[in-house]
Amino acid sequence: MKRNNIQLDDQGRLRHFLSVEGLPRTTLTEILDTAESLASAASQNVKKVPLLRGKTIVNLFFEPSTRTRTTFELAAKRLSADSLNMNISASSTSKGESLLDMLHNLEAMQCDMFVVRHAESGAANFIARNVGDSIAVVNAGDGRHAHPTQAMLDMFTIRRHKGEFHNLRVAIVGDVGHSRVARSQIHALTTLGVPEVRVIGPKTLIPESLRGLGVHIYHDLDEGLDGVDVVLVLRLQNERMGAALLPSEREYFHLYGITAERLERAADDAIVLHPGPINRGVEIDSEVADGERSVILEQVTHGIAVRMAAMSLVMGQHPGKDGEARA
Amino acid sequence: MKRNNIQLDDQGRLRHFLSVEGLPRTTLTEILDTAESLASAASQNVKKVPLLRGKTIVNLFFEPSTRTRTTFELAAKRLSADSLNMNISASSTSKGESLLDMLHNLEAMQCDMFVVRHAESGAANFIARNVGDSIAVVNAGDGRHAHPTQAMLDMFTIRRHKGEFHNLRVAIVGDVGHSRVARSQIHALTTLGVPEVRVIGPKTLIPESLRGLGVHIYHDLDEGLDGVDVVLVLRLQNERMGAALLPSEREYFHLYGITAERLERAADDAIVLHPGPINRGVEIDSEVADGERSVILEQVTHGIAVRMAAMSLVMGQHPGKDGEARA
Amino acid sequence: MKRNNIQLDDQGRLRHFLSVEGLPRTTLTEILDTAESLASAASQNVKKVPLLRGKTIVNLFFEPSTRTRTTFELAAKRLSADSLNMNISASSTSKGESLLDMLHNLEAMQCDMFVVRHAESGAANFIARNVGDSIAVVNAGDGRHAHPTQAMLDMFTIRRHKGEFHNLRVAIVGDVGHSRVARSQIHALTTLGVPEVRVIGPKTLIPESLRGLGVHIYHDLDEGLDGVDVVLVLRLQNERMGAALLPSEREYFHLYGITAERLERAADDAIVLHPGPINRGVEIDSEVADGERSVILEQVTHGIAVRMAAMSLVMGQHPGKDGEARA
Repeated sequence: MKRNNIQLDDQGRLRHFLSVEGLPRTTLTEILDTAESLASAASQNVKKVPLLRGKTIVNLFFEPSTRTRTTFELAAKRLSADSLNMNISASSTSKGESLLDMLHNLEAMQCDMFVVRHAESGAANFIARNVGDSIAVVNAGDGRHAHPTQAMLDMFTIRRHKGEFHNLRVAIVGDVGHSRVARSQIHALTTLGVPEVRVIGPKTLIPESLRGLGVHIYHDLDEGLDGVDVVLVLRLQNERMGAALLPSEREYFHLYGITAERLERAADDAIVLHPGPINRGVEIDSEVADGERSVILEQVTHGIAVRMAAMSLVMGQHPGKDGEARA
Repeated sequence: MKRNNIQLDDQGRLRHFLSVEGLPRTTLTEILDTAESLASAASQNVKKVPLLRGKTIVNLFFEPSTRTRTTFELAAKRLSADSLNMNISASSTSKGESLLDMLHNLEAMQCDMFVVRHAESGAANFIARNVGDSIAVVNAGDGRHAHPTQAMLDMFTIRRHKGEFHNLRVAIVGDVGHSRVARSQIHALTTLGVPEVRVIGPKTLIPESLRGLGVHIYHDLDEGLDGVDVVLVLRLQNERMGAALLPSEREYFHLYGITAERLERAADDAIVLHPGPINRGVEIDSEVADGERSVILEQVTHGIAVRMAAMSLVMGQHPGKDGEARA
Repeated sequence: MKRNNIQLDDQGRLRHFLSVEGLPRTTLTEILDTAESLASAASQNVKKVPLLRGKTIVNLFFEPSTRTRTTFELAAKRLSADSLNMNISASSTSKGESLLDMLHNLEAMQCDMFVVRHAESGAANFIARNVGDSIAVVNAGDGRHAHPTQAMLDMFTIRRHKGEFHNLRVAIVGDVGHSRVARSQIHALTTLGVPEVRVIGPKTLIPESLRGLGVHIYHDLDEGLDGVDVVLVLRLQNERMGAALLPSEREYFHLYGITAERLERAADDAIVLHPGPINRGVEIDSEVADGERSVILEQVTHGIAVRMAAMSLVMGQHPGKDGEARA
């Protein structure tokens, strides 16, 4: 009874959104197309659509992330859903309730969706496997494993600027080994048909095992950026790294920081993305972050539409061309 | 001018819901019937009704309880009300505002209902006596005194399974002396016509004064469970007890823990209830909690409908048979 | 391109509400008139109007203030807007995000309004100067500088009781030097045409520079209250004062506390206002606070309507006479 891919139902429709890995190109394209129709609606001053009216979405945040929670909360409001924020460390554990009992209780309260953020890889998957048919699960970041809505908003932004994926060279720069964002990006890019995905970073931060995902590894930034159309800069997350792996911030910037000068090696119309929040002067120079190649704030805007799309699709709701509901 | 029973208005309609004690059977039955009509509506995929649209409900929580607050918040959302969460210890006291000034301010902001949770017995009652006519008060648990919505969701669950109350034997097992839930349950059961209410627990946890409420006291679990139709298991609340009163958790489970074996003494179709969250292996065995006699998760579902019912009735709103509003 | 007064657009319409200072009388009167129409709507049991449906209002609170946040949150709900609460110290700074990056991110999420509370004077102004055209900013109190919605609710309350401003004598009593409320009150009163504004308090709390605002300074309470029509009592904010400036609470009450006896010097129909929360027995006696001259709870009620008015106007929405939207 346990399907091979719990993200899809028997008809191949999206039922949970746990990781980009394992989803076919048609599903990723459906998410992008749905987001496109919702983004168009938003630009017409009708930011709010009734797609999830009366539905209850629970933000289950086992690690704090104001930024991510805010984007999901806004997406829920703009879908007309009710949302409930639960900071788990602070609540149920104080009375010693087990995680599964808590999930089953929320299910019994007839909630419809769990948006899950957890420090451990596989947490969203575990939860999806342990809830009933009435609950859809969306992964808002689990450990080093996946951050699929972030990856899809990157894809959305790339498609808006480049139109197609099949002719792109894309570089991911930074702490690829520890990044859930990077893993999801690599799967999304290759699934959508990008022929050349490069990862760039110091040897200590890029495990050789990544070659198995079909990427090209560079340790020299200039070489890696040569001729690329898209630069995906990763956030340097000091808190995730053991002390010995990383040079000083200053040295990191010298070796891998994205500056206007280094970017000259990329294609003339290359765009630069970053998941935010930015460490200015560490992984990216302010001149680039605020410059004309940067699409960082567009990513934030598109993030709402992409999350709205994922949340609608897992609930079986498909907006029409005008952003209105159709069942 | 102070009425004898501040919970009812001059026409005998529910105006505050502070305790089951003192309410006539007709009122309790009205709450159950209202909850029934709202629960039916919920099962038809129209979880949200417009009964309290535009009303402002303030969750005044003087002690933290994520679980209870969540159920009231969901009930408010499904009634289309706006709700405001106030964690009192963290807010107004920091500026030294008196409780009464704070209540009068919220009243002046044209709020409509206070849902009150407080560690001290009588707090909800005190608040109801000190607010104006425009405010309805619902008790979400005060000290050892009462937890009326919890008791009513138990009654609702019993009625769903047993149909009638007049032919039931009901046992309440555990720390009856310290439990606000137990006090409310006893009043609800006797008012609704249950002929035999038993309480079961160690001598240190059951005050003799309970006999005044018309219950039968048992200190032996097997004797107490003999032939009962309903078992209401209480949560063991270590934090409420002085150290000397309670045996070890292990010893407690041995003496009073509800296991499949002990349950054989009860009626064949006996049901088991628990207010949650469960301490597995302390007051109840997992085999029972997750077994076919358990209606624990149903209680959670019904809890939303019962709270919606109480909140609607104190606001003078009665849903029709289809869950729609009628004034 | 930077206009002299960033609060008004090219047509002189309110675009941000940062301070009363610098706004013409017509604008203040428009706020009062808009609040009047919204207050009338509220009293007809239609507390909620659809003026800001689909708009996203972010409460950016850099210093905690449950009370002020509650009034803005209620105002937002009654305008049918979605609101997002952000406690800044607790969130983005933990990941080292800069303030401007955070603001630009919220802007990119297509939020429509920032309600700003900050301990530093000028913060709301700074934010208004650094956001794009799509964002309106409302100041909910910045340092010692301004608290314009508080001042306007005082004006609203005065107009309700006195009808006109041009024939009034108004006294502001207390720690005028440290009060953002007092500065905003003085600007509002003089702009609306009050011919005589007095400030009363100890020399240590009233800077001589205030004379530049056209007020009369009194250090003796009896002299200052003589014949006034309106008494605006300030809250004594111990936390804002250096130790040496202030006598003991008891001595302060003796010298400047508003009692029924001291009030005999005022006009027979004088009214008493206080921004709350009250320090009973420090700046005001309970007999006065709860007495017939007190309009303190009315202020709280009017505060919602005035905030709704300011929020509607900065969004370009003007309610009709019945509180309904007209563009």
